[in-house]
Amino acid sequence: MSTQQLPLLSPEEFKAALFAIGKERYHHRHPFHLLMHEGKLHRGQLQAWVLNRYYYQSRIPIKDAIILSRSNDARFRRSWRERIIEHDGEHDGEHNGGHASDGGISRWLELAEATGLTRERVIGEHEVLPIVRYSVQAYLELVRSGSMVQAVASSLTELFAGELITLRIGKLREHYPWLAHGLSYFEKRISQAPQEAEFAFRWVVENARTREQQEEALNALRAKCDLLWAQLDAIHFAYVDPGWPPPDALRMEP
Amino acid sequence: MSTQQLPLLSPEEFKAALFAIGKERYHHRHPFHLLMHEGKLHRGQLQAWVLNRYYYQSRIPIKDAIILSRSNDARFRRSWRERIIEHDGEHDGEHNGGHASDGGISRWLELAEATGLTRERVIGEHEVLPIVRYSVQAYLELVRSGSMVQAVASSLTELFAGELITLRIGKLREHYPWLAHGLSYFEKRISQAPQEAEFAFRWVVENARTREQQEEALNALRAKCDLLWAQLDAIHFAYVDPGWPPPDALRMEP
Repeated sequence: MSTQQLPLLSPEEFKAALFAIGKERYHHRHPFHLLMHEGKLHRGQLQAWVLNRYYYQSRIPIKDAIILSRSNDARFRRSWRERIIEHDGEHDGEHNGGHASDGGISRWLELAEATGLTRERVIGEHEVLPIVRYSVQAYLELVRSGSMVQAVASSLTELFAGELITLRIGKLREHYPWLAHGLSYFEKRISQAPQEAEFAFRWVVENARTREQQEEALNALRAKCDLLWAQLDAIHFAYVDPGWPPPDALRMEP
Repeated sequence: MSTQQLPLLSPEEFKAALFAIGKERYHHRHPFHLLMHEGKLHRGQLQAWVLNRYYYQSRIPIKDAIILSRSNDARFRRSWRERIIEHDGEHDGEHNGGHASDGGISRWLELAEATGLTRERVIGEHEVLPIVRYSVQAYLELVRSGSMVQAVASSLTELFAGELITLRIGKLREHYPWLAHGLSYFEKRISQAPQEAEFAFRWVVENARTREQQEEALNALRAKCDLLWAQLDAIHFAYVDPGWPPPDALRMEP
């Protein structure tokens, strides 16, 4: 039976289907995050995570600009552009009294510095795992060439992010107290992620008007979960077990 | 110093630089292949490799068609189209007396069947690791949007393939005798890969006329090695150690 013949899901059923995907395949279940939250990672492993995840974080405004560029609705664009501002900040260092930008990417760099990495090393991106690059490229390709419903629905991992981030802040403070001054990225995201998720969720519910479009949205959310998961696979394989980073990738300090 | 200011490499120096990349980062050094050649993989792990690698194999003619589509030189196109014919074969099953196609993809499916997988399960691609998909997409993107020198140079891993395949056939026969009737793909590639490599190598040497273009070619070959490596990272992580395949990916039989 093709999806066109299936009945439209009610908003409640659709929301339940979206959350079921998160429960099954959001990266809160990945062994790397489980180890992180159990306090079983060492500083070098957290550095590897932060350095690689920077590559993802730094492409979020590009992802959002692609989505922005595809909308004919000024109301949508006015809301969506806030995401770009949140990540890139209002100011760069030079126009902000010598301080770094106040955006999410800059806050991520504070986290990187708290692990002992230099800003330059992270921004240089020479040590990023190829798989992390591929998964981010796959994300950009999804929002560029998928339907608009798919593009927006792929951001719905934010529906699950609030809970994970709240847990993470507590666990990082508990197990890695030397990181405590680098957590402003997560502190800000606790309120941001649910706000952004709410707008995107309402948009997807309103604009996925056929069962086929609803299935497109569900598949896009699955695809997004998969690419977050794949990043952790790569990090876990290279830096936890068996510890064989590919050529050029960051080598952990002994 | 930018690469434009560096002197052009002689053909010998250029070839040496290409081979140095192979020595450093071709996937013959990957732990998964080392285990394979030591006879330390079990049938389920070989199935996982063959099923995932099918996704890569089956996109090779698409990669080659993209390269073909970018050339204005009929002589180049006449040579390059042979690659497509080699992989897709001359006939499909229906026009070949009920036998399967005689192309490389079909021979890969014989290998899959020798591991105990059904053809349908492999062709269905439902259990492919997301990272394998991303790396193949990255390959197609490289040949689509890179320079023509980059596109052709990315195929130069064939320079290293002959030796690896010769070794592999011997090791597979020795350690996994139940696979012996499925090795026609590799047997054919022993002669094909060096022929194809020779044409591509001569083309790259002739057409990389500046040091900058030579560096582009070297970087494209590095990028290609990285994506082959990444596929094995994903397979190793999911199926060897610690054995945590992502949602939907093939589950090994116990």
